[in-house]
Amino acid sequence: MKVFLPPTSYEYVTVHKVQDHDVATASDVLAVEEPLEIRIGFGPTGQREYRTLSITMRTPGHDFELAAGFLLTEGIIRTRQELHGVIYCPDVEKEEERENVVRAELAPTAMPDLPRLERHFYTSSSCGVCGKTSIDAVHASSCPMLPTNGPYVHPDVIHQLPAKQRAAQALFEQTGGLHAAALFSPEGDLLLLREDVGRHNALDKVIGAALLQEWLPLHEHVLLVSGRVSFELVQKAAVAGIAVLAAVGAPSSLAVSAARDFGMTVCGFVRQNRYNVYCHEWRLRLPTTDSPTTH
Amino acid sequence: MKVFLPPTSYEYVTVHKVQDHDVATASDVLAVEEPLEIRIGFGPTGQREYRTLSITMRTPGHDFELAAGFLLTEGIIRTRQELHGVIYCPDVEKEEERENVVRAELAPTAMPDLPRLERHFYTSSSCGVCGKTSIDAVHASSCPMLPTNGPYVHPDVIHQLPAKQRAAQALFEQTGGLHAAALFSPEGDLLLLREDVGRHNALDKVIGAALLQEWLPLHEHVLLVSGRVSFELVQKAAVAGIAVLAAVGAPSSLAVSAARDFGMTVCGFVRQNRYNVYCHEWRLRLPTTDSPTTH
Repeated sequence: MKVFLPPTSYEYVTVHKVQDHDVATASDVLAVEEPLEIRIGFGPTGQREYRTLSITMRTPGHDFELAAGFLLTEGIIRTRQELHGVIYCPDVEKEEERENVVRAELAPTAMPDLPRLERHFYTSSSCGVCGKTSIDAVHASSCPMLPTNGPYVHPDVIHQLPAKQRAAQALFEQTGGLHAAALFSPEGDLLLLREDVGRHNALDKVIGAALLQEWLPLHEHVLLVSGRVSFELVQKAAVAGIAVLAAVGAPSSLAVSAARDFGMTVCGFVRQNRYNVYCHEWRLRLPTTDSPTTH
Repeated sequence: MKVFLPPTSYEYVTVHKVQDHDVATASDVLAVEEPLEIRIGFGPTGQREYRTLSITMRTPGHDFELAAGFLLTEGIIRTRQELHGVIYCPDVEKEEERENVVRAELAPTAMPDLPRLERHFYTSSSCGVCGKTSIDAVHASSCPMLPTNGPYVHPDVIHQLPAKQRAAQALFEQTGGLHAAALFSPEGDLLLLREDVGRHNALDKVIGAALLQEWLPLHEHVLLVSGRVSFELVQKAAVAGIAVLAAVGAPSSLAVSAARDFGMTVCGFVRQNRYNVYCHEWRLRLPTTDSPTTH
């Protein structure tokens, strides 16, 4: 059995691959991250009401299943019979957003607990109906542009970050179950590290600690995160003025396109003396690269 | 530099450690996961208003920094000066919940954009102010108790799951950036696999697919998730009737205590022919174990 996802689930980008002291450009594949708005239709025929239930960042593909599973596991429906069907919402104005909005039609007899829904559900803090909208919103509001004259980081410094972070992770050693976020100087000195079961929380703790110590904006710092890089992490880092983000895991498509817009350098898969640079590689002053190749 | 977290950040439990065919009981450390409610106080002196901004599942420790960072990165405040301070909320009735509620006092001149806050923030779908409350709520609402007469799974089957999942993960191979959730038979046959940048989405897709195919309740299935196990994942699995949950990563404290209450078997760190069983190990019919030891 092999599960093949639709072509909208992944995206090709050109990256700079660094291995030890060597650099090559190559093609790489990113998992797509885009918002999905889940709406519900309910009430008796002729008096249907419609409501937005949630907006979640997801990888396109199996969207109707995602909506059905969400409705069940969050207690909106209890049986298959309470769900008449799920469709891409036909009345979304912009065509490019149409596959990011689904509508679940509940059976006419199914009655969601509306006050509970209002109390418990939400639209995500970091996205609008489409990623582009939300990137624009971030630009327009609290996100200052990042410095265009640095900081410059030696490519070898990036290689050293994970080992330094791991050595300082007191709790991870014991539990193996925590995300970490850490601030380094451009020379690779560890300045601040925080841990949490939630990766966005670990980053909020680091940024909050820096804010309380009046370090902001963090234009002269390098951030390392232990996991993958979502749009939300890039957005949070940008608000704090962080211009260089390195991660042990992979970035999503939306994380890279947001970082490109914000002017943020993003390195991913930082492990075993390798990493990929996804955008704004000028801050690393990489040695002249060879011509593009595939992997 | 070594960062030490407060003792409330981790918790000791006794687990069954399985390596190849051997089983031993041992002490293990879990990262604590508990809800944190962030409230804000704003408005001029004498006319202060208070509002709940969010409830997030987090690891206790550095809570004031977490709140400060959240306020900044979500655009509620823009400078250190707009934040007067953060305290544990003194007017929370239950003493055991007091360290799970913080109040950020904004400067009298800082005016949050209230309509935007109402649009953008939320209380999490899966937790109340304290984990216990929310576990009770799940019990009371849509969460049926899991079967007490099975399914029985041979301990060797658990070892095989990650390799089978990986072989079917078409997109992960290319991107390295996706979470997966998969359903297996008790004999270890892969039945359904879904991927997503969000681990809760991958699980919702699996459960949604199963719901649409009228497989529910999933009493005769084994679930494997690629990452760590949070309370939210245990809750979603329980709603779908899943009684055996295995994970490549570590579970949180609240995930294990919820699973214990629900009657769910949880295996963590399933990799390299080892795993830990955190609760309800009877479904694995493990060979008689030796007496408790430390690691």
